[in-house]
Amino acid sequence: MAPNTTVRKKGRAKSTAPTSAEVATIAGVSRSTVSRTFTQGASVDPVTRARIIEVAQDIGYAPNQAARSLISGRSDTVGLVMASFDNPFYHTVLSGFLDHFQRRDIRVMCHAAPDIDGVDEGVRAMLRYNVDAMIIAASGMTSSVIDDCRRSGVSTVLFNRTIPGSRVHSVQTDNLAGGRTMADFLAIGGHGRMAYIHGLEQSSTNRDRYTGFADRVAELGLPEPQQEFGEYTYQGGREAVKRLMMSGNAPDAVFCANDIMAFGVLDGLRTDLGLSVPGDVSVTGFDDVPMASWPSFGLTTIRQRRNRMIDAAVALLDTAITDPKGKDECVSIEGRLILRESARLPSPRPS
Amino acid sequence: MAPNTTVRKKGRAKSTAPTSAEVATIAGVSRSTVSRTFTQGASVDPVTRARIIEVAQDIGYAPNQAARSLISGRSDTVGLVMASFDNPFYHTVLSGFLDHFQRRDIRVMCHAAPDIDGVDEGVRAMLRYNVDAMIIAASGMTSSVIDDCRRSGVSTVLFNRTIPGSRVHSVQTDNLAGGRTMADFLAIGGHGRMAYIHGLEQSSTNRDRYTGFADRVAELGLPEPQQEFGEYTYQGGREAVKRLMMSGNAPDAVFCANDIMAFGVLDGLRTDLGLSVPGDVSVTGFDDVPMASWPSFGLTTIRQRRNRMIDAAVALLDTAITDPKGKDECVSIEGRLILRESARLPSPRPS
Repeated sequence: MAPNTTVRKKGRAKSTAPTSAEVATIAGVSRSTVSRTFTQGASVDPVTRARIIEVAQDIGYAPNQAARSLISGRSDTVGLVMASFDNPFYHTVLSGFLDHFQRRDIRVMCHAAPDIDGVDEGVRAMLRYNVDAMIIAASGMTSSVIDDCRRSGVSTVLFNRTIPGSRVHSVQTDNLAGGRTMADFLAIGGHGRMAYIHGLEQSSTNRDRYTGFADRVAELGLPEPQQEFGEYTYQGGREAVKRLMMSGNAPDAVFCANDIMAFGVLDGLRTDLGLSVPGDVSVTGFDDVPMASWPSFGLTTIRQRRNRMIDAAVALLDTAITDPKGKDECVSIEGRLILRESARLPSPRPS
Repeated sequence: MAPNTTVRKKGRAKSTAPTSAEVATIAGVSRSTVSRTFTQGASVDPVTRARIIEVAQDIGYAPNQAARSLISGRSDTVGLVMASFDNPFYHTVLSGFLDHFQRRDIRVMCHAAPDIDGVDEGVRAMLRYNVDAMIIAASGMTSSVIDDCRRSGVSTVLFNRTIPGSRVHSVQTDNLAGGRTMADFLAIGGHGRMAYIHGLEQSSTNRDRYTGFADRVAELGLPEPQQEFGEYTYQGGREAVKRLMMSGNAPDAVFCANDIMAFGVLDGLRTDLGLSVPGDVSVTGFDDVPMASWPSFGLTTIRQRRNRMIDAAVALLDTAITDPKGKDECVSIEGRLILRESARLPSPRPS
């Protein structure tokens, strides 16, 4: 069934892409038969079809992605499973990944996953579509779906998350260090009654930010931070700060696990409670989304270095595709304290 | 080459999905040969391969998407080309489409297209991947790429845009009516020196919002609105309002072509110029993104009914897939004036 003549081989330097006419000549069929072979749903005699696919493989002719995919074993598609399309941090992440992959002519399939079940569902859907790699920016995934990824040989990286002991690549900000930095900054600003507003309790980012913060507060000999819960949303932050301020032990500084909750806290303090920021209470966040720099908020926060994180994630995927048996890595990138107007600064020392 | 026995036909009611074992039995090959046939890059004798695909088609066996795609003629994938991932309106749109298509087990491929060339590039990339349908939420596309869509038979809908005479489905808010409503509202609030901040000049949404606004202002016998340009961005709005206020003929009301420019205008007026809103100047927008309701902004705006728009877009695509020769439709959905604190309200009549 193999054709007798092969005018050129895949991988050989050539000035133009192979054409359907060449495939037709070599396979001894009409161009319309070649065209039907690569048209979904069109009818072609199966033996002729097999011969045409073989010739196409041989000379590197691939008119569309389904054909290219079957021939090359690659789909040139990356799956992106994201927890939340409500959080502006993830918009900048999505935009950064799209920018990167579009430059390489790789398509991005998106899946929104509000919870762990959603992540599993999204990951399994992506696997059925033979994505070459997968990026998961969500609060977690079950171990059975991690096994599915490994079995399928699809390179996977967790973004802004880690699952200890999971044998999956991950990239994140050093959240422990970020939490510690914020404790130090608020302490030297003279705050003594700190509070922390949690995002989603089960997320590793939230846990690490709190642990770093609370540990450092304890080391500094200050009272343990009060805790409230805001589910990583604007409304959650706005409600949480009201509970904190009514608690009978109102804090003088509120550190939020992400920026969007901090915006809710700012509106809750100023509008709902008529308080002044940072006069009455200092407010800080984590992420440094674009809005944090708008004067309406002027939020002091820990910047996640989004571009470095994206570069690191892509580098891990590229390595994993080249060397699928390689060891899994957990890349941690230092965040950066960004000072704005929402938190009291340390007073200058008397000279 | 056709198998002699066919145990069941596609479409026949059955309690379980066809298995690779059934395909193997009917085709007279081993299960591992069936498995290799549907594994990208694995080697199988082409004639055997053709027979296996035929049996699979016959009994409806499809282990992965590439196989399913070749067999069914559908990829169960929709392409989404979006202008801007900086504008929160599009985040809610993306999230709405993902929600809809995920419920139907259809994957969404995303492409960010900052300009018309980017749209063309994105559309052509999607066509190579055999998407079943395409949604374009971007400022425009060239007529040659519209021809490509039509030739490929991929159902296409423009979202939040229209291209007059282009023979492509479109869904949008009635932008002309929205502009007129805003002119009426500001006029009865006693504003006499109005200004309009344009988004992207070439976009149909911007053009229609301005035309409706300016026409109605003229009908009301008020002076022609001053015009400035803010490129649909926060920073663009913030700079534009400074130019307006320094122009020697400062407006008493500023209508922005979208909400995010209006946020920039609010920050520009209050922080950069020390003015009061709406005491000195009223500010209004278009979209009603979630942030517009936050008390930091409290923006009076025209709400785009995102869910209705998404439902309409999906209905058009579904119709187009069933009836590809159907007439193209342009669906226009009425927006809604949402009153908040950023614009002066009409005074109550003396009783």
